[in-house]
Amino acid sequence: MSSLHFSVVGQSVTPTKFVAQARQFEVVIDEPPVLGGQDDAANPVEYILAGYAGCLNVVGHLVAKELGIHLRKLSIRIEGDINPARFLGQPTEERAGYKSLQVHLLPETDEGPELLQKWLQIVEARCPVNDNLRFPTPISITLPLTSRVYPN
Amino acid sequence: MSSLHFSVVGQSVTPTKFVAQARQFEVVIDEPPVLGGQDDAANPVEYILAGYAGCLNVVGHLVAKELGIHLRKLSIRIEGDINPARFLGQPTEERAGYKSLQVHLLPETDEGPELLQKWLQIVEARCPVNDNLRFPTPISITLPLTSRVYPN
Repeated sequence: MSSLHFSVVGQSVTPTKFVAQARQFEVVIDEPPVLGGQDDAANPVEYILAGYAGCLNVVGHLVAKELGIHLRKLSIRIEGDINPARFLGQPTEERAGYKSLQVHLLPETDEGPELLQKWLQIVEARCPVNDNLRFPTPISITLPLTSRVYPN
Repeated sequence: MSSLHFSVVGQSVTPTKFVAQARQFEVVIDEPPVLGGQDDAANPVEYILAGYAGCLNVVGHLVAKELGIHLRKLSIRIEGDINPARFLGQPTEERAGYKSLQVHLLPETDEGPELLQKWLQIVEARCPVNDNLRFPTPISITLPLTSRVYPN
């Protein structure tokens, strides 16, 4: 399989609400009132955690199948703290994003801890979102010289 | 404002479908058939792009307001390529996640390119998701010794 191309395109509805299209799917994003929004949907940094959990789920099941692990269910909790000072433009030494992330995996299976530790190591190494959050990713941001919006 | 805590918790519905809760919001994640799913929702790496776009939208409007830029609308497209070889467990030199990300911002405004370039620099520096994707983030992944699921 060659490289897969993924994209989203979307527009602001309010200063905090954004509607993104990913193929045929619509993803609505907003902020809670404490961050200036109307709480119409999960917020940007929550979607990052949700995507990460969804990725660990897919890779978790794929690797379990390869190792002969019968995974009846996989529960995942991911959490992290953000100091909003930089986001708000206040003086701070802290970074803008999550300072760290804590992932808690709860596989429902009869396997013992040794095989599950091996499973976890392989899952970590092969999960795309884990890679992009844990390690740097080159990003280019472009701005057109003329101001316009994308055609729908 | 002190640090803000964010979390998601969820469970697998199928090997590719995952339902995450972020506060009162449900985020459903699946994979397209080419990646083994039933295409019930956007996939994990698309949610990463959507969260990133939503974050740039919020910070973009916040910084525009500070700079006196009247932003009538902000359109955002984000795209990237993933080689699925590592995800699939095939031998490869390529990383698991997005090799790079291309972000295209299209602000609908009457401001000229000079002020918009200044706006962009500040937005990049203050966007939490930009920070977590562009720079490394410490991650801990834990596995319980006993296999169980989270209580709902």
